[in-house]
Parts: sequence; C-alpha cells; structure tokens
Amino acid sequence: MSTLPKLLDLIRVPDGSVGRDAQRWLDRLTKPPGSLGRLEELACRLAEITGKCPPEIAHPVIFTLAGDHGVVDEGVSAYPQIVTAQMVENFLRGGAAVNVLARHAGARVIVADLGVAGQLAAHPDLRARKIAPGTKNMSRGPAMSRAQVEAALQAGIALVESERALGLDLIGTGEMGIGNTTAASAMVAAFTGAPVEDVTGRGTGVDEQGRRRKVEAIERALLVNRPDPSDALDVLAKLGGFEIAGLAGLILAGAAARIPVLLDGFIAGAAALAAVRLKPETRHVLLASHRSAEPGHRHVLAALGLDPYLDLGMRLGEGTGAALGISLARAAVKILSEMATFKSAGVSDRAEGA
Amino acid sequence: MSTLPKLLDLIRVPDGSVGRDAQRWLDRLTKPPGSLGRLEELACRLAEITGKCPPEIAHPVIFTLAGDHGVVDEGVSAYPQIVTAQMVENFLRGGAAVNVLARHAGARVIVADLGVAGQLAAHPDLRARKIAPGTKNMSRGPAMSRAQVEAALQAGIALVESERALGLDLIGTGEMGIGNTTAASAMVAAFTGAPVEDVTGRGTGVDEQGRRRKVEAIERALLVNRPDPSDALDVLAKLGGFEIAGLAGLILAGAAARIPVLLDGFIAGAAALAAVRLKPETRHVLLASHRSAEPGHRHVLAALGLDPYLDLGMRLGEGTGAALGISLARAAVKILSEMATFKSAGVSDRAEGA
Repeated sequence: MSTLPKLLDLIRVPDGSVGRDAQRWLDRLTKPPGSLGRLEELACRLAEITGKCPPEIAHPVIFTLAGDHGVVDEGVSAYPQIVTAQMVENFLRGGAAVNVLARHAGARVIVADLGVAGQLAAHPDLRARKIAPGTKNMSRGPAMSRAQVEAALQAGIALVESERALGLDLIGTGEMGIGNTTAASAMVAAFTGAPVEDVTGRGTGVDEQGRRRKVEAIERALLVNRPDPSDALDVLAKLGGFEIAGLAGLILAGAAARIPVLLDGFIAGAAALAAVRLKPETRHVLLASHRSAEPGHRHVLAALGLDPYLDLGMRLGEGTGAALGISLARAAVKILSEMATFKSAGVSDRAEGA
Repeated sequence: MSTLPKLLDLIRVPDGSVGRDAQRWLDRLTKPPGSLGRLEELACRLAEITGKCPPEIAHPVIFTLAGDHGVVDEGVSAYPQIVTAQMVENFLRGGAAVNVLARHAGARVIVADLGVAGQLAAHPDLRARKIAPGTKNMSRGPAMSRAQVEAALQAGIALVESERALGLDLIGTGEMGIGNTTAASAMVAAFTGAPVEDVTGRGTGVDEQGRRRKVEAIERALLVNRPDPSDALDVLAKLGGFEIAGLAGLILAGAAARIPVLLDGFIAGAAALAAVRLKPETRHVLLASHRSAEPGHRHVLAALGLDPYLDLGMRLGEGTGAALGISLARAAVKILSEMATFKSAGVSDRAEGA
C-alpha cells in the first residue's frame, strides 16, 4: 500500500489564524459577541479546517459504507444479517432515514458496498467496492487480514478522491452493517483501554441477554486476537469491519485535503480513533455531529477531544447524525457570510452604550 | 378585553391518540424502534398538537416582536436603547441573525413594533402595533398599565389571526428589546419564586457590575410593585414589556388554534410562563427549541416542564433558537412522511431475526 504513507504525510495541524479571522468577523456582526454560542465555534472550526473565511459548503456528501460482520454468529444483533443488503437497497431507493435527513440538509448520499455478505444487484448509484462478503467472526480469529484492511482504507480514500473532482467540500460519515456496534465496541475497548462492559450497549436494540452476548464475544475477540493498540491497522484488522476501515480511509483523505469531516455516531467514532492513531493530526479536521445514545460514544468523544453539537438520543447510524450536523454547519456558515455588520447596518455597537 | 376569555376557552388538552398513532407509524419505518431519539418524540408532539399524522409544516413563521424598556435607565444593558429601533431596521433589511437562520429553516420572519421608543420609518413589512414608546421604569412603578398589557396581548393574538388566513402552521417566537432580559428575569422571579440572583444573567453581555445593577433593579421592582404571581396580567403589567405581552398573546392564539409554538429562549420563556398562568392547558402546544445560556432559563424550563431540543450555548434571542428548532421540526416531520416502512422496502424486521 504505497499511497497511505504519502497521504498521511499531507495531514498537518491547520494554522489557527483563519479560525481567528472568522471569530473577529463574527464579532463585527450585529449581535452581542459570542451570543450564537457553539454555532460561532462551528463556523470558526470550519474556517480553520478549510483555511477559508467564510468557508463554503456547496457540495456536502454523506458516505454511507456498508459491510457485514462474521461476529453476528454469536447472536449479537436484533436483526438478521440480510438486513445489511436490504438496507443498501433501501438507501439506493431513497427510503431510509439517512436519505430523508440528507435531503433535508441538502447533502448527497453516496452508498458503497465495502463488504456486504451476498450479492447486491447492480445499481448505477451503488459504488461496488466489495473486498469480501463480510468479515470473519472476530471472536474466533482476526475479522480481516491486514491486506483486506489496507484495501478497505484505500477504497475509502478513493471514494473521497473521486468526489473531490466534483467539488466535495464537507464529508459526513455513515455506515450500515448488522453487527457493527459489536466491532466498534471492541475497537474502542482496544484503543482506549476502557472496560468492555462500559463501551458495549444495546446497538439496534438487543435485550440485556443480547448485550451480555456482545460483551462476551468482544472479550473473547480481545483474548483470541491480542490486538496491539499502538498499531491501528492491527486493531482494525482483528476487530473492525470493511465499512469501518473504509470510513477511516475517508477520514484520512478528508484530513489530507483539508475537508471538514462531520462524524456520525459511535461506529464513525471507532473509525476516527483508528484514523487518529494512524496520524494524530487528523483530529483537527474532525467535528462530532451528535452524541449517540450508545454508551461507548462517551469514551470515543473523550479520546478524540470532541464535544458534539447535538444530543438527541439518536442511535441509528447510517449518517443520520451527520446529516443533522451538516444542516447546522450550513447555518453556521450562513451566519458568517450573510449577516450584516454593525457598521453596514448602522447599528450602534456596545462601545457607544453603557 | 372581551375576546381573551373566549380565546382561553378554546385552549384544551390535546387528545393523545394522534401522537400515539405517530409513534406506531414511526415503529413501522426502516429503523430500530426509537433509534431516532428525540427527533421521534418531536414528530409525535407535532402530531399530537396539530391532531394530524403526519403533521404539516408548510408555512412556519417567526414572529419577532420589538419593544423598549424604561428600566434601561438603571444601566442594565451593554447597548444603548436606540439599538432596539436600529435592529428592527436590520430585521426589515434581512441582515440580522434571525433573518439568516429563518431563511436557512425556510421560515418567514414577521417583524412587529409593539413598543419601540421613538419613531420607526414606515416599511411595508413592518407590522406597526406600537402601544407606547417603551415601558416605564419598573424599578419605580408599573412598567405598563393593565390596559396596555391587554392591548399588547391582543396585538399578539391579531398577528397570529391574520397569518392563519395565509396558512400559518408553526409559530416561532422572537423578540428584540434592549433591557428585556431584566424584565424577563423579574417576571421569572415573580412567577416561580426563584431568587432574583439565580435568574439574572449577563444578557447581551454586561459585566458583573452590570449584572449586580440588574439584580438590584429587579429587587426594587418587586418591592415597589408587589406583583401578584397568581394574576399573570398583573405580573406582565408591572414587570413585563410590550413585546413580552405580545408574545404571550401569540402563544395563547397558537394554543387556541392547535398550532405548535416553538419557543426561542429566555424572554420567550417568560412570556410562556405568563400564558400558562392565564391558561394551564397552553403548556401542551409548547416546544422548547433550545436551552439558552441565560441562567434563568433553567428555571423557566422546569416550571414549564419542557426539555429543549438544542443546547448550543446561544443567548441572542430574536427568534434565532426558534429558527434552528423549526429546521429540526421539519426534519422530524419528513422522517414521519418520507421514510419507507419495513414492508414497503422489503426489509426484514427484527421479529424475523435473532
């Protein structure tokens, strides 16, 4: 994999001056300084990441990557594996939650098959990048080979590259994969050292018995595979999934191109942890759209140093949180680019008052 | 004021069955039950309030009412009083934060002068409903007469009535008035019995000395006026403002017509407390768009029994929080009306799994 080191080398800590320019501009607008709270902070972060003030959000894309997980053999999901493929078809028809919320936010959804079990019908909008028909059961051995992880990362990078040519200026992450909260919990436990118990939730809605099965499957996976937390590719290969590795690739490609990455929820967070372990400076392009109801998300956010913008108790994935985050990001940018200044509006500033 | 009792009589507790229908429909859509969290709850509340499933949001309006406050003589604001009038002009030109965020949300902004000090230039989009050029200084006597409060309530009601003819289906509250956090804090202290100290913040950004002046002005106002907390019109008259009373009128008119009311922040909350004291059933049409950074808002939300959807540290007013809330409400309604069901999409439901 010759291009990954080159890509990582492009990822730098952004110069903070454009973010500060954005705050100075915000302070000239007809509102008390700071009174739009985190909307102002979001505008400044987008300016800092892109190096543009105002930044532009004209071509936001939610990448919804799909993959299946061998660990479903352990009874970790409330839904049968076939749902991954069925939901991909639902995405392509525009009937899923992410489609609805992406339309609401004025974002496109790009659906890619990174590793769905079984055959998907060809569709002009489906990016067919299947590496294998699902991972192996991680509680019995590595989920993927190192070569497979590298191929999945590369596929994520390539998706971003081809959209960049069309003007891509904001990346939302999304995913679909029955069993993938189990993979994400395992990765988060490996990367952060948090107890498996604390980072394992009910996913799509298993009962407490199902959650116990998840915890046990993850503990076995950690025991059997002994992933090396200092080697992100090792953790990804042993515990991750094709769509999760693909997301890590997307995130790294966004960081290299200074395209802001709006993370969705828990699964996206696990992918981001991997990306940040591969290149710590990646952290600076990340924005957490929302706080997931999955208990492990807290640990992810703490490890990434991110404070989410929304907290709506959502736990669907697909990119639904990212879609709402894109809408908020657009609002933040419009504040920066459309509001009048005290001067242009002839409004007395506070200096003249008191 | 002959029509207020009639209006209050129209306000009922909505039948919960349509909200339950909405939840049943949400549970048939291609997502794990409840996985969209508070977005689902918001969709159900909108269905319940309107009695329609799916509810429609085709003509949302943010009503930004303006009024001045005599209490500014006590040095309670960081900005001079003239800013109220200047900001009204800014609203009419479309350059203020509420204009930007309302455009983002696809909502109209209706600007009304309920009691701005001084003369505003006529403008085709300005609803000129001035009752008096600002309230009197509440720390020396009543801010308004009872007749003035009733006129302001009536003006708010009339604004809703005239927009109903044009299809109004969602009300966002907004306001502008230098000094109005002082009035709102006084009202909240009177209605809830919370210590003045706890419900008085920095408003548009006074320093600690300025905040102390606010606390003292409010304590004097409570001492001088002895408002009767069981008489909402008395509290409004002695401590409120023209725009706050107008908002209370808007809220009551919305409740009577079963039009959901998305409250903005702290000032809107004070108006809502007055409306709910006039008719407790009003509570059922209220939605809290966001949690304001003003410390008193917590007390308002607790008294109203509302849990805000957004928490972005905003404290601007104008209707900016309501605008973001309208965008979220539209997203919630689209989930209800645009998503595929398990059946229509041919996706296996959980019953078939595990």
